[in-house]
Amino acid sequence: MKKTILTAMLIAPLMASAQADYKQDSIFIRKIFNTALADGKSYDMLRHLTQVVGPRLSGSAGAAKAVAYTKEVMQQEQFDNVFLQNVMVPHWVRGAKEQGAILDGKKKISVPLVALGGSIATPKAGLTAQVIEVKSFQELRELGKEKVKGKIVFFNRPMDPTKLQTFDAYGGAVEQRGSGASEAAKLGAIGCIVRSMTTRLDDVPHTGSMRYASGAPMIPAAGISTNAAELLSKTLKANPGTQFFFKQSCEILPDAPSHNVIGELKGGKSASEYMVVGGHLDSWDIGEGAHDDGTGCVQSIEAVRILKVLGYKPNYTLRAVMFMNEENGLKGGITYADSAKSKKERHVAAIESDRGGFTPLGFGIVGTPAQKAKIKSWQKLFSPYGLHEIGVGGGGADIGPLGPQGTVLLGLIPDSQRYFDYHHAGNDTFDKVSRRELELGAASMAAMLYLLDKYSVE
Amino acid sequence: MKKTILTAMLIAPLMASAQADYKQDSIFIRKIFNTALADGKSYDMLRHLTQVVGPRLSGSAGAAKAVAYTKEVMQQEQFDNVFLQNVMVPHWVRGAKEQGAILDGKKKISVPLVALGGSIATPKAGLTAQVIEVKSFQELRELGKEKVKGKIVFFNRPMDPTKLQTFDAYGGAVEQRGSGASEAAKLGAIGCIVRSMTTRLDDVPHTGSMRYASGAPMIPAAGISTNAAELLSKTLKANPGTQFFFKQSCEILPDAPSHNVIGELKGGKSASEYMVVGGHLDSWDIGEGAHDDGTGCVQSIEAVRILKVLGYKPNYTLRAVMFMNEENGLKGGITYADSAKSKKERHVAAIESDRGGFTPLGFGIVGTPAQKAKIKSWQKLFSPYGLHEIGVGGGGADIGPLGPQGTVLLGLIPDSQRYFDYHHAGNDTFDKVSRRELELGAASMAAMLYLLDKYSVE
Repeated sequence: MKKTILTAMLIAPLMASAQADYKQDSIFIRKIFNTALADGKSYDMLRHLTQVVGPRLSGSAGAAKAVAYTKEVMQQEQFDNVFLQNVMVPHWVRGAKEQGAILDGKKKISVPLVALGGSIATPKAGLTAQVIEVKSFQELRELGKEKVKGKIVFFNRPMDPTKLQTFDAYGGAVEQRGSGASEAAKLGAIGCIVRSMTTRLDDVPHTGSMRYASGAPMIPAAGISTNAAELLSKTLKANPGTQFFFKQSCEILPDAPSHNVIGELKGGKSASEYMVVGGHLDSWDIGEGAHDDGTGCVQSIEAVRILKVLGYKPNYTLRAVMFMNEENGLKGGITYADSAKSKKERHVAAIESDRGGFTPLGFGIVGTPAQKAKIKSWQKLFSPYGLHEIGVGGGGADIGPLGPQGTVLLGLIPDSQRYFDYHHAGNDTFDKVSRRELELGAASMAAMLYLLDKYSVE
Repeated sequence: MKKTILTAMLIAPLMASAQADYKQDSIFIRKIFNTALADGKSYDMLRHLTQVVGPRLSGSAGAAKAVAYTKEVMQQEQFDNVFLQNVMVPHWVRGAKEQGAILDGKKKISVPLVALGGSIATPKAGLTAQVIEVKSFQELRELGKEKVKGKIVFFNRPMDPTKLQTFDAYGGAVEQRGSGASEAAKLGAIGCIVRSMTTRLDDVPHTGSMRYASGAPMIPAAGISTNAAELLSKTLKANPGTQFFFKQSCEILPDAPSHNVIGELKGGKSASEYMVVGGHLDSWDIGEGAHDDGTGCVQSIEAVRILKVLGYKPNYTLRAVMFMNEENGLKGGITYADSAKSKKERHVAAIESDRGGFTPLGFGIVGTPAQKAKIKSWQKLFSPYGLHEIGVGGGGADIGPLGPQGTVLLGLIPDSQRYFDYHHAGNDTFDKVSRRELELGAASMAAMLYLLDKYSVE
């Protein structure tokens, strides 16, 4: 009994304190959500970034405008310090609108097609060849040089619709887009077309980055819509001699100067240490870069803005970071981490939003078991807002390079069901974003940033 | 020690059995989701119901077509028994396209306006009067007859954007639409316009049912878009003499014959007892009735179809029920429950989907504490699919009348953030529905139906 009483005496004040903190945190987080939902600015920022600035591929005029706009916004919001960080980025341009067609005997059926980012052009008159369809690299290799040489290889493995997280389905299919061209070229193919990375059946072709393997000949690569892929596959079954035509005039230009955009809220007792919320400012060139990743950018600015508006005085210096060049190089993320290292700017935690502006369901965490456990202990503060999955999943591409410096990495995990309907495609536009879903994500990030700052994760 | 061993001996087989069941259930539920996502039919059914059949207000030709279509679908899917149940329904018709305008001095600004369901017409030439804006019935009553008489009362209390569940925000505002006209008429108003029930600011007017209180004069009532409401409010502040004009030719016709549509999968050992999954087949007339409630109908058919396709042999007789007339009378739900009672068809459980075809997050339950506890004990079977909220919320309007017969009522609870963007409005169309979100909801209903049938809730 004595021991029990002693334990109770020791624990009781701690519990009272924990309960007081819980109540206080709970009230403050409610204020964060109220501000985002009733007086939020993320939606109007997104409207500007997507509809006025528009697409913003690295090296483009749009990207430069996006740098200027987000800098201006954070200055207008009177962040303590707003500045640019120089980044050299790849500069790929699409050129004229592409053409694609199935040639079934004398029939020519035009199909929606876009060059993959990083691809070379076709010859000026376009490229026409017989098509060989495969579902995997293994199937391709088993066909061998004899059957592949001189042909256009058509990668047609769909994203698996039974995966509950669409990112898992994407992960199971995207090698076709990233490495398909070089795998095909190694066996003598002269062109590569890839089924778009979406579970939808529609007429919207999706782009995205591809890389040429060193040593493999560079051949042109394009994405076709899923309906076109279905049609081509069906046509090939009926007529194995079916040819495909495509024409694209994309170019790889010399690397170009660009910027990360950084806005700070100065910390108090740990002001020389940092916490980051970020998204990537660049986007593909064929839509408006709404869900990928305009939403992450405006949510990051909004998260810091809300804490400022609510009068929160952070311990750490909090940064909203718009990373440049996630889509085709990650130079922004790499440069940011390199700079932090060389300037000895210790980064304690970083949060990224790059999975679309959909209803938030949780946060992924990359950190030590103790850090994960600490962050997961805040679960009950997030559950009232529908975030039941704290600790499921990882961080984000742009913040990844901070990992080796000991930074805890967190990724906002929104509902993924619609993300690949729009990802890297012409329909990734402002109208696809729900104001409330966007705002709930921004509030979730602000709440997580608040807890990280208040309790640290050291 | 002895006691512990004895307990272990007694519990172990039970635990082993529970674990075996859990594993078996887990595998079967995975099959349900795989079927819905890879071989689902709900999306194509919804396309037909919304785009071929179209809107289907009670008593309309569209409603009759929807009855015929869903009956045919369940017959094609070889449900054991498909039949219609006679229901007499209210028959309100909108008439010609409405007109609405703000009259600010000599300026006439047209605004989007729709008659509320159940409203009478304006005079043929329309109705013009000064406007008085209120946010609540109390404010209206405080103004009194003197200030209200001869005017059009404008109800402009917005849905509260800080409510996390949009249905809560709707609940806090919808009395203006339902009872506003009569409240205003009691004080001598000659017309009533209501801010649309949505948190969005846009140009889309929302309809929905209104009721005339007995004893109050019947005055015409209409909904205006939220942008129009903002403009009218601003105009009134600048010019309190602002008038409003609207013209509508709607009519209340005599009640009309219609039907509930019922498809059965015959049960085994409890075949004379029933479990229901349902949605409502009627919709408002100005959109396609996609999220409200085409999705609930096709999900209900799909839930039963999936169990059938997977070869599940139910204990109870399972019914997919398309209820008629939820929107403006609930006659289908009332008739169904009355019939069950008079035929002594004992209904053990009923599931409704009438909150849109969005990503499912849980199920509401209305039942005894023991029944709730039993259903909540299945939580871990739903968590892998993102349904973390089993037991939060209620059932559904159509199944409500079964409650007094002791039926456990469950409501599918999807993410609510976008629902009121489309609810009762012209933009509630097929293209607003995500295939995957719809399918996940159908699978969730099938999984719940399976567990209810297998373990009962008696």
